[in-house]
Amino acid sequence: MAAANPAGTAAPIEWKIIVEAHERIRPRIHRTPVLTSESLDALAGARLYFKCENLQKTGSFKIRGATNAIFSLTDEDVRRGVVTHSSGNHAAAVACAARWRGTTASIVMPKNAPAVKCRAVESYGGKITFCEPNVTSRAETASRIQAETGAVMIHPYDDDRIIAGQSTAAKELLEDISDLDAVLSPVSGGGLLSGTCLGAKGTKPGLKVYGCEPERADDAYRSWKSGKLQTLESSDTIADGLRASLAPRTFAILQKLLDGVLLVSEAEIVAAMKLIWERMKIVIEPSSAVALAPILRSSGLQEIAMAQRRGDGPAKVGIILSGGNVELKL
Amino acid sequence: MAAANPAGTAAPIEWKIIVEAHERIRPRIHRTPVLTSESLDALAGARLYFKCENLQKTGSFKIRGATNAIFSLTDEDVRRGVVTHSSGNHAAAVACAARWRGTTASIVMPKNAPAVKCRAVESYGGKITFCEPNVTSRAETASRIQAETGAVMIHPYDDDRIIAGQSTAAKELLEDISDLDAVLSPVSGGGLLSGTCLGAKGTKPGLKVYGCEPERADDAYRSWKSGKLQTLESSDTIADGLRASLAPRTFAILQKLLDGVLLVSEAEIVAAMKLIWERMKIVIEPSSAVALAPILRSSGLQEIAMAQRRGDGPAKVGIILSGGNVELKL
Repeated sequence: MAAANPAGTAAPIEWKIIVEAHERIRPRIHRTPVLTSESLDALAGARLYFKCENLQKTGSFKIRGATNAIFSLTDEDVRRGVVTHSSGNHAAAVACAARWRGTTASIVMPKNAPAVKCRAVESYGGKITFCEPNVTSRAETASRIQAETGAVMIHPYDDDRIIAGQSTAAKELLEDISDLDAVLSPVSGGGLLSGTCLGAKGTKPGLKVYGCEPERADDAYRSWKSGKLQTLESSDTIADGLRASLAPRTFAILQKLLDGVLLVSEAEIVAAMKLIWERMKIVIEPSSAVALAPILRSSGLQEIAMAQRRGDGPAKVGIILSGGNVELKL
Repeated sequence: MAAANPAGTAAPIEWKIIVEAHERIRPRIHRTPVLTSESLDALAGARLYFKCENLQKTGSFKIRGATNAIFSLTDEDVRRGVVTHSSGNHAAAVACAARWRGTTASIVMPKNAPAVKCRAVESYGGKITFCEPNVTSRAETASRIQAETGAVMIHPYDDDRIIAGQSTAAKELLEDISDLDAVLSPVSGGGLLSGTCLGAKGTKPGLKVYGCEPERADDAYRSWKSGKLQTLESSDTIADGLRASLAPRTFAILQKLLDGVLLVSEAEIVAAMKLIWERMKIVIEPSSAVALAPILRSSGLQEIAMAQRRGDGPAKVGIILSGGNVELKL
C-alpha cells in the first residue's frame, strides 16, 4: 500500500525530473500558443507574453500535472483507481488523464463548483462526490473515499509529480520567449506557482517570478510576508480556481524561489478578464485574469520591482493564463 | 487621378502576387495559431484545423488585405488619404493600416453596425460616416466621400490587392498543415473566400474549398447555383460580417476555383458559435461560426463531397475563423 502521498520526498525537484515530466506528457497535451496584444502592452507599459493554458486540453494547465502523475503510476496503482479533490479544473484533468490511462477517477468537488466544471468531469467519466466548500471538508471527504476504495490520491498540488507537470507551462513559455524579465502566475495551492518558479528559473535563473492572488483569498500573501504557512478556510472570490491554500511542499519551494506575491481586488480581476476577452479574443476564467491585473495598475511595474527596465525597451513579462472554464451565457 | 478601382485588372492573381503580398504584410500582422479540439473532431467525424484569424490584429483577417492594399499605395496616394465602406472588420483594418502607413482613413459604416466595431475604428483614428444598412447606400456614400476628398478607395473585396492579402490566411494554414483535404471559409463579398481558393489551391491544387453562407444572406449560393451573379440588397442574419454580396471580380475567381457553397441556418450558426467558445475557449463572432456549422450536420461530410475518406483516417478539414469582434456582456 502506497503512502497517502507517495510522491512526497524532501528532495528538491531537479531539472531532470522536469524534463522527464515534459517528455512524458508532451505527446498527450497541447503545446499552447504564446499570444501577444499591442493594446494590452500599451496599457501595461510592458511587453506581455500570454501563455494560453486556457487553450490547453480540458481547458486548463491542470492536465499537465494530472497526466504526469497518472502516467507515473505503476500498473498495480492503476488497477486501484485514483481519487482527488478539486474546485474543478484539476478534477476534469484527473478524470481525463485517468481515462487516457484506462483507470477510474473519483472526484470530490465543493458543492458550489461551477456547473460547467462538474459537467466536464462527468464528460470524461469521472465520478463526483460533493463536499462543503472548504479545505477541511474536501480533504476529509477525499480521505474517506481513499480509505474505502483503496484508490491512489492524486493531490491537486501537494505532490512533486503534479508540481513537475505544472512546471512545463513556464518551461515552454521560456523556450518560446527566452528573454523574459519576469513571469506572473496565479496562486492558489501553489502547484502552478511553484512549478512556474522551477520551470522558468530552471531555464533562465535571473528571471523574476511573482504570484498573483485575490485579496479575498490572500493566504499565500500572508504566508510569504510572515514566513509561516497561513491557511484559508474558505473564500468567495470570483476567482473560483484560487480558493485553496498553500501546502508545506509548495510553500517550501516558493520560499526558496519566489520573488513576491501581488494582491488584486475583485474589481481588478473582472476588469482584467474583460480586457483579455475583448482585446485578445480568448475565453479565460477569472482565476487567469488575476495574473494580468497587477500589471495594469499604474504602480504595477514598480511594485513588481522591475524598475530595472531593459536597455533595449520595456520589460518583457510572461503571464500564465491558467484556464478558460467559465459558464457561458450566449 | 487613379481609376475608381486601381487594382482592377482582368489578369488572374498569380502565385507570385500572393507571395509578394505575404512578404509585404508579414512584419505587421500576427502569424495566427492553428488550433485543434478533440471534442469538436468527435462531433464532426473529421479532424478540424482552425485558422484563428479572430486572434489576428484588429480581431479579424481583414487586416491582411487592408495592409497589403495600403502598403501598395504610392506616396502620392497616401497624401490623399483612403476611404472605404464596411460592416465593421474591414473598417477597423483600414483605419489601423492607414495609421501604420501614416495616412487618414474615412470609413462608411451601416448605422446598424455593432458598437464595438465602431469603437474599434475610432480607436485607430478612422473617421466614420454612417449610411443605411444596404449595399447601395454604402457604395453611394463612399463614392460621394471619394469624389469630395480625392481619397483612394480601398474596397472591402472588389480589389486584387485585398484578395491577395486575404489569401495569405489559407497560405499560412496550408504551410502549417500541408495535408488538408478541404478548407471551409465564410463568404460575404467573396474577398476571403476567393483568397482562400487562391491561397489553398496554390499550395495544394487537389484540395477542395467550400464557401459557407447564412441562409438569410444566400447570394453566393444563388450565384454559384445559377452561374450568374446574384445580389443581396439587405439581410438581418446574426452573422453581421456576411451581409455583403459578391462582386464580379470575386465571383469570377469562385467560378473557376470553388467547389461549392454550403448554407446554414441562424440556429446552426448560434450552436456552432457556442461550441467554439465553450470547447476551444476562444471568442469568435457569428460570421466565423458559419464555417464550422455545415460540418456539424450529420450530412456534413457527405454534403461537402468528402466521401473520398483518407486511407489513413478521417478527413482533415481546415476552417477559417474569420474574426472575433463581438459585443461582450461580462
